[in-house]
Amino acid sequence: MNIIDGNKIAKDIIEDLKNEVGQLPNGRPTVAFIRVGEDPASISYVRKKQKTAEAIGIHAELTVLPESISQEELFAVIETYNKNDAVNGILIQAPLPKHIDETATFNQVDPRKDVDGFHTLNIGKLCQEDASGFVACTPAGIVELIKRSQIETEGKHVVVLGRSQIVGKPATLLMVRKGTPGNATVTVCHSRTQNLADITRQADILIAAIGKAHFVTKEMVKPGASIIDVGINRIPDATKKSGTRLVGDVDFDAVSPLCEHITPVPGGVGPMTVAMLMQNTLKAFKAMNS
Amino acid sequence: MNIIDGNKIAKDIIEDLKNEVGQLPNGRPTVAFIRVGEDPASISYVRKKQKTAEAIGIHAELTVLPESISQEELFAVIETYNKNDAVNGILIQAPLPKHIDETATFNQVDPRKDVDGFHTLNIGKLCQEDASGFVACTPAGIVELIKRSQIETEGKHVVVLGRSQIVGKPATLLMVRKGTPGNATVTVCHSRTQNLADITRQADILIAAIGKAHFVTKEMVKPGASIIDVGINRIPDATKKSGTRLVGDVDFDAVSPLCEHITPVPGGVGPMTVAMLMQNTLKAFKAMNS
Repeated sequence: MNIIDGNKIAKDIIEDLKNEVGQLPNGRPTVAFIRVGEDPASISYVRKKQKTAEAIGIHAELTVLPESISQEELFAVIETYNKNDAVNGILIQAPLPKHIDETATFNQVDPRKDVDGFHTLNIGKLCQEDASGFVACTPAGIVELIKRSQIETEGKHVVVLGRSQIVGKPATLLMVRKGTPGNATVTVCHSRTQNLADITRQADILIAAIGKAHFVTKEMVKPGASIIDVGINRIPDATKKSGTRLVGDVDFDAVSPLCEHITPVPGGVGPMTVAMLMQNTLKAFKAMNS
Repeated sequence: MNIIDGNKIAKDIIEDLKNEVGQLPNGRPTVAFIRVGEDPASISYVRKKQKTAEAIGIHAELTVLPESISQEELFAVIETYNKNDAVNGILIQAPLPKHIDETATFNQVDPRKDVDGFHTLNIGKLCQEDASGFVACTPAGIVELIKRSQIETEGKHVVVLGRSQIVGKPATLLMVRKGTPGNATVTVCHSRTQNLADITRQADILIAAIGKAHFVTKEMVKPGASIIDVGINRIPDATKKSGTRLVGDVDFDAVSPLCEHITPVPGGVGPMTVAMLMQNTLKAFKAMNS
């Protein structure tokens, strides 16, 4: 059983990016972060992204807008960054206040600067296997973990648990596409799936993104399978100072002895998303300066 | 065993569309066809679409361009239709000459007039389950056949044979989405799939879009399954005047006795595509006039 070390892999990628950015002949990439309101989790995420950008040599700008901002005002800020040739990537930290349409906001970003990969056009490009698009950071991180752990996908049966727009569907499209990793037979399961365990037990690779703590039990897993656990669920834990701890969608202690490879939570997919965001920013910079 | 009559269902839809168009308070929809060159199959397809449009009461315009036209000139023609408010739908008949980039051409069409559903933005909308987009006519026809044959999809296992951009992937996205038909567990198989028959035998609904005559044999099908055969393959047949006949991807004679429902070829999915094109044109008209 190999525990996939997402922290180590993310660190390797960030190191690679730092080397590449250091050798760019034509300046440094710039990413603009837009944060709306003072949600503590958002503050912490954006700070982490800024710090990683700076460590790589990517210039990071932060605009903080009041919770009360109107959609039109927010769009105007985005438009300023769209028009600014010095900005390569734009990230709007979710969640946004309820009075703002999130999908419309993500679609306001110039698709060439959409380093989050949330623009409808980039989702379409993913479906069309057009490599010029941006893939959202979580599914991109899943693929990178599989690749760097040398897990074979070609002809294998990948079962994706969850059909969300941001994980399940893009992961499905990435695993089925022509390429490496890719060329897998893929089954998408969700809350309506009948006889779920019969299906998950067929998985050579199981991608769990259903958002339920310890949902995947050992009865649902074929011995020798590899598991990517995308879930981040907070459960009560009296032994912790906070009274809670984070767990994935997989019952790690029971399932991991059966697995060829498995990602832990935390420390699996999570750390990959920031690395993928930086990779997308460098990609945007290179596309704009080629 | 029920043979799904695609001709009858398409005719019903066309009749419904005719009634709806006849009652429109604000004029008639217009669809513009662009044909490049004199390919006999393209001439015949476009003529069929024109005739169907006229039968419904949709105004159809045809522009025929020479095979030698440049991409820029073709784009300029498309732009004229994009800007013409009287035109609701634009269809560029494929295949295009080799010197013209097909994807770029389809992306030149205003997405609001993309009644073929080939624009990257409409593919993205399909993935995002945004009902304002246009779904390509073949996968839309598959869904409509399933719906009008009252084949239950919720919680069922749909196996899609083929991962093409125009059938396999959109059909997968449509079957997995929240809705009716939809909410299915979906497996996508293709040329690299291992142990294919083990997977197809699990299908409650099998969508065959692999482009190989008689590929699906009775050993690959679970008794009681429903089959949508999207293949159109020409094979030698000495008993025919032409020396050939059309068959699907399914060995119909051997497989059909096992099935709950099955589409024939010809006369299954084929007739649906023109009906879906007309449905998309009416949808475009209503969106522009609402």
